[in-house]
Amino acid sequence: MANYEIKQLREQMSKEGIDYYIVPTSDFHNSEYVSDYFKKREYLTGFTGSNGSILVGKQEAILWTDGRYFIQAEKELSGSEVILYKMGEPDVKTMEEYLGEHLLAGQVLGFDGRVLDTKTGETFATIATKNNAKICFSKDLVCSIWNNIPQMPANKIFLMPEKYCGKTVEEKLFQLRDKLKQNQADGFVLSKLDDIMWLFNIRGFDVDCNPVALSFAYITMKQVVLFVQKEILTEEIKKYFEENQIQIKEYHEFYEFLTNKDLEANLLCDLRYTNYTTYQLIKAKSHIIALNNPTEILKAKKNEVELSWMRKIYEKDSRAVTKFIFWLKKNLGKIEITEVSAADYLESLRREIPEFIELSFPTISAYGKNAAMMHYEANPLEPVLLKSEGMYLVDSGGQYFGGTTDVTRTISLGAVTKEMKKHFTLTLVGMLQLSNAVFLEGCTGRSLDILARKALWEEGIDYKCGTGHGVGYCLNVHEGPQGIRFKYPLGYQEAPLEAGMVVTNEPGVYVKDSHGIRIENVLVVEKKIQNSDGLFYNFETLTMVPIELELLDLDYMSQKDRDLLNAYHKKVYSIHESYLSEEEKIWLKEVTKEI
Amino acid sequence: MANYEIKQLREQMSKEGIDYYIVPTSDFHNSEYVSDYFKKREYLTGFTGSNGSILVGKQEAILWTDGRYFIQAEKELSGSEVILYKMGEPDVKTMEEYLGEHLLAGQVLGFDGRVLDTKTGETFATIATKNNAKICFSKDLVCSIWNNIPQMPANKIFLMPEKYCGKTVEEKLFQLRDKLKQNQADGFVLSKLDDIMWLFNIRGFDVDCNPVALSFAYITMKQVVLFVQKEILTEEIKKYFEENQIQIKEYHEFYEFLTNKDLEANLLCDLRYTNYTTYQLIKAKSHIIALNNPTEILKAKKNEVELSWMRKIYEKDSRAVTKFIFWLKKNLGKIEITEVSAADYLESLRREIPEFIELSFPTISAYGKNAAMMHYEANPLEPVLLKSEGMYLVDSGGQYFGGTTDVTRTISLGAVTKEMKKHFTLTLVGMLQLSNAVFLEGCTGRSLDILARKALWEEGIDYKCGTGHGVGYCLNVHEGPQGIRFKYPLGYQEAPLEAGMVVTNEPGVYVKDSHGIRIENVLVVEKKIQNSDGLFYNFETLTMVPIELELLDLDYMSQKDRDLLNAYHKKVYSIHESYLSEEEKIWLKEVTKEI
Repeated sequence: MANYEIKQLREQMSKEGIDYYIVPTSDFHNSEYVSDYFKKREYLTGFTGSNGSILVGKQEAILWTDGRYFIQAEKELSGSEVILYKMGEPDVKTMEEYLGEHLLAGQVLGFDGRVLDTKTGETFATIATKNNAKICFSKDLVCSIWNNIPQMPANKIFLMPEKYCGKTVEEKLFQLRDKLKQNQADGFVLSKLDDIMWLFNIRGFDVDCNPVALSFAYITMKQVVLFVQKEILTEEIKKYFEENQIQIKEYHEFYEFLTNKDLEANLLCDLRYTNYTTYQLIKAKSHIIALNNPTEILKAKKNEVELSWMRKIYEKDSRAVTKFIFWLKKNLGKIEITEVSAADYLESLRREIPEFIELSFPTISAYGKNAAMMHYEANPLEPVLLKSEGMYLVDSGGQYFGGTTDVTRTISLGAVTKEMKKHFTLTLVGMLQLSNAVFLEGCTGRSLDILARKALWEEGIDYKCGTGHGVGYCLNVHEGPQGIRFKYPLGYQEAPLEAGMVVTNEPGVYVKDSHGIRIENVLVVEKKIQNSDGLFYNFETLTMVPIELELLDLDYMSQKDRDLLNAYHKKVYSIHESYLSEEEKIWLKEVTKEI
Repeated sequence: MANYEIKQLREQMSKEGIDYYIVPTSDFHNSEYVSDYFKKREYLTGFTGSNGSILVGKQEAILWTDGRYFIQAEKELSGSEVILYKMGEPDVKTMEEYLGEHLLAGQVLGFDGRVLDTKTGETFATIATKNNAKICFSKDLVCSIWNNIPQMPANKIFLMPEKYCGKTVEEKLFQLRDKLKQNQADGFVLSKLDDIMWLFNIRGFDVDCNPVALSFAYITMKQVVLFVQKEILTEEIKKYFEENQIQIKEYHEFYEFLTNKDLEANLLCDLRYTNYTTYQLIKAKSHIIALNNPTEILKAKKNEVELSWMRKIYEKDSRAVTKFIFWLKKNLGKIEITEVSAADYLESLRREIPEFIELSFPTISAYGKNAAMMHYEANPLEPVLLKSEGMYLVDSGGQYFGGTTDVTRTISLGAVTKEMKKHFTLTLVGMLQLSNAVFLEGCTGRSLDILARKALWEEGIDYKCGTGHGVGYCLNVHEGPQGIRFKYPLGYQEAPLEAGMVVTNEPGVYVKDSHGIRIENVLVVEKKIQNSDGLFYNFETLTMVPIELELLDLDYMSQKDRDLLNAYHKKVYSIHESYLSEEEKIWLKEVTKEI
C-alpha cells in the first residue's frame, strides 16, 4: 500500500523543492505513543510499530526500526518499495550516515521541525551544512497529501484528586522551583505530556492508552502558564486552574508566545522532549540550561500515597489476569477463542474494577509463532484461533485511578516442545533472580540487568530489548529515568535506582516463526537495610499472577530458584483466595502448588 | 610531622602572594603511581597512600582521599594539624566545593600546572573566576621548601623485543594513525607514560614498580618526536629510534617545543592525562580534539603473542605464590616470620623466575587487623610478627618480560572466628561467580560487577572499591579503559569488554580493627560463542593459586559454587604438580581437594 502514498509525497517534495524528506514517529512532544493525527509515518508506510522513521528520496524510501519490530516490519512492508534498515545490526547504516553519504551539495533536506526533537534536528542540520545542503523544517508535507487525516485530538481533561496523588500542585511547584534554583534557572519550558499531567494533577485522553492531554507549560518563579485546547475545559477544571494560579492559554498559541514574549533569561529545557522548532525559538532569546526535566525524577519516585494505591490496584489487576487464565484454560476447546476475543475478555474483566479508566497499551495477545514479535498486535480482520497446543502470550495492562499496570504471562495451551520448556524455565529463573536482587544505593539498572539474563546467556540466548522500564502512575506505561538494560546509547545518563521507583522485570525468549516467551512482573524499589556499608535496596513485587508450572523443566532450576517460585506462588494464592469462586480457588491452589 | 612542612609552605605562599595552595598526588603525566621526586603531598603531610590531595590555606590544611585509605590516613595524620576529608562520604564537601565557599575576592589560588590534569586545572580556574579571585599555576612551592628533594629519576630505557610484543612500532604507528584519521586529527600529543612505552616497545625504570620512563610524544602523520632524558639512552636504543624514524628531543624541552613549533592544526589530546600547563600551550595554537588516547584501547586488547606469554608467566608467578603459602604454613611457629620477611621471601621466589624484572607494586603483606587497610604497606621499622591465629592477606605481583601479575590470597594461620569464615566464603562465592560469567558483546564491567558482590550484598556487606581493574603487559598494574565497578564518576565513558582484555577479579571484606579479606584472580576476556543472538564472551582465568579451604563455611556455598571451586582447584593442582617437591605436592593435593 505504501507505494501510492510515497509517490504523492514525492510530488509534494518536488513542488517545494525538497530532495529528501524525513517522517519520524512523533508528536510535537516526542511522546513514545502518539494519537492517530500524528501517525504520519504509519500512513506513509503501513508499518504500525511504535518506533520507526522513514526517509523518502527521489529514488529510495527507507524505514529504520529497532529489534522489537524487525519481524513485524518485514511482514508489514512486504510488497511495498520501502526498504527496511534494521537499527543496531552490524553494517546497517543509520539514517544520519545514509544522509551523510547521499545528500548532495545544493539539495534540500526537509522535515517538520515540530515532530523532531532538538538533538535529531541539529544532527540533520549539521549534516546538511557539512554537505553544503540546506534544511527546511517548516513544512508538514504528509498533512497536505493525507486526505482523511484524523482530527487533532481534543478530549476532556479531568482532575486526579489529591487522595490519589498524595501531593498538591502547590507542593509540586514548590519542589520544582527548588530544583530550578539549584540549577540557576529562572524559568522552565516543559513539553513532555506526562510530566505536565503529573505536575498539575490532571489527566486527559488525547493519546490512546496514555491519559494525557496535548499541552505545553511555561513556568517561572512567579508565573505558571499552561497551553491547552481551551474548548475542552470544564468549569470545574477552569476553577481549579484559577485557584492554583495557573494561567491558561491556547495550545496552538505556544509558538507565538515564545516568539512574542520577553522570555526569562535562563530557561531550563529538556532537549530530549523539546521539539526543534521550539528550541530554535527559545534559543533566539534566552540562555538554555539543557537538563533532564526536573519533574521526571520527582514523578518517578512514587510517594507513600501513590504506592499504597498501587498495591491495591495491582492486586485487583492481577486478579483479573488470574481469572482470565482460569477462564482460558477452562474454555479452550469448548468455545471458539481467538487472539482478539481473548484480549477482549481480559479487558472485560478489567472493566469490572471500579477504578479502571482504559487500557495502558494495546493488549499483546499472541498465539504460537506470533508471540515471537515482541509488540505483536492481533488483527481483527485476520483472526487467529487458539488451539490446544503450544503457548499463548498475553502482555496487557490498565490505567486506573491509583496506578498503571503492565503484566505478561506465557501460558501453555497443550503440547509444547522440550526447547520451549527450556526457554520458559531460563526466562523464569532470570525473572526470579532480578526480583530478588539486593543492591546498594548508587546502582543503576545496568548493574542489575545481568541477573535477568544470566541463565539465558549461559545457554547462548539473548533477548533484543531492555529487561525493564519505569512505569507511570496512571500515566505512561513506559516512564523514565530508570530502566533495567545493559546497553545504552553513547552519552546516556543512567539514573540510579531509588526508593519508590517502579520498574518492570520482563526477560524473554523470541524465536522467529516458532514461539515467544515473556514473563513480566512489576517491582518497586524499597529500602532493605542501612548500615555502615551503606543503604541497601531490594524489590517489592506488585504483580500477583500465577506462573505456568506446566512449562517448567526443573533441570534448569536450582533449589533456590524453586524456593523463590514457591514463595511467590504461596503469596499469589493467599492474596486472591478469598475473592475467588470455589472452582477458581481449587484451580489456583493446583497451579500455585509447591514444586 | 606535617605541621613544620605546612608552616614552611605557608611562608612561601605569603612570599608569593598566594592564599590557597593545592598539592595533588601526581607527576607531569597524571600517572597513578609517581616516583619519589613527585611525592610532594606525601612530603607535606606524611600520608603515604597513592591517592590524595591537600589544600593549604592560611588557617587550614585539609587532605582529601578515597575509601581505600580512610583508615590509613587517619593513622598517618594523627597528631598533625591536617584534617581528613573522606571523599564520597555523605555531607563531606569536595575540594572544589570547599574552595567555592572559602576563596575570597582578590585572593590567589596557587598550584603547579604541570601536576594537575586539564579538567582539574580548569575547574579551579572557573572557581577563581566565579569568586573574583585569580589563579597562579607557574609555581612549584613545595620544591622550594623541600631541602633533600630526591633527584628527578633518569634511569635506563630498554627495548621490549618483538617476540614479547607481537607487534612492531611500525605496525602500531600505522594503527594509531588510522585512528587519528578516523577522528579528523592530523597530530597527537601523548603524555601518558605507559602508552608511550607500549607504542615504542620500550620500558624504563623511572617509577617504582611501573616500568616506564619519563617522556612525552608528539606524533603527526609523518613525524614522530619522543621527549626523553637523552643522557640515559644507550647506543642500542639510539640506533633503534633512528631505524624507526623516531626523532629524539630532551624531556624538559617539551614545553619549549609546544611554545615555539608550528603545531598541527588539529591535535588529538587525552585531557585526562594532559597537564594543565601543556593544555594551555596547545590551546593557544591548535584546535584540540579531546578524546581518550587511541593507544589506550589498542594497548588494552592483548594480542595473541602477548596472551601466550601471559599464560606462561602467570603459571610461573602462581607457582611462586603457591610455594610461598606452603613455606609459610610449614614454617609458621618454627621460625620468626614478620609481614616484611614474608613479603621478602615471596619476592625471592619471584626473583628465581628468569623473566622477572621487578615487583609490579609494593607487596601488601598484612596480618590480622592490618589487612582491613586495603593498601596497607608493612613498615620495616615496626615489624609485625605472624602468629598461629587469625588470617594473613598477601596481595602482590611482578613485572616480567611477558606480562604483569597481580594476585591476592587470604590465608588462615590458625583459629579464626565464624564471622571471618562467613566473610571469606561470601567473598569467594563472588569471585567464582564473576570468573564464570558469560556475557554479551557490549557489556561493560558495570554489567558484571554485581556477580562479585551479590553474595555479600545479600548479607548487607559491601567493599568500598571497584571489583577489578585492567592490567598492563609488563606495564602499569592498573590500566584502562576497562574495569569492573558499579559506580562511575558522572560523565565517565565506560569501555565495553572485548576479547583480549585483562581484568582483575578481587572482591573482599574489610572490617576496621578486626580483619581484611581479599581473593584476587586475573582474567582474560575470550570469545565463547557467536550465534544469531550475538557474540558471547567468557573469562579465562590466568591465576592458578590454591584458595584456603580452612576458611570456608559451606553453609554459604551452593553445590554449584562448590563445583566451580573444585574445578578450579583441580586445574591448579594439575598445572603445578610436576614442578613441585614431593612434600609440596602432597600438601597441594590436600589443599586443593574436592569439597
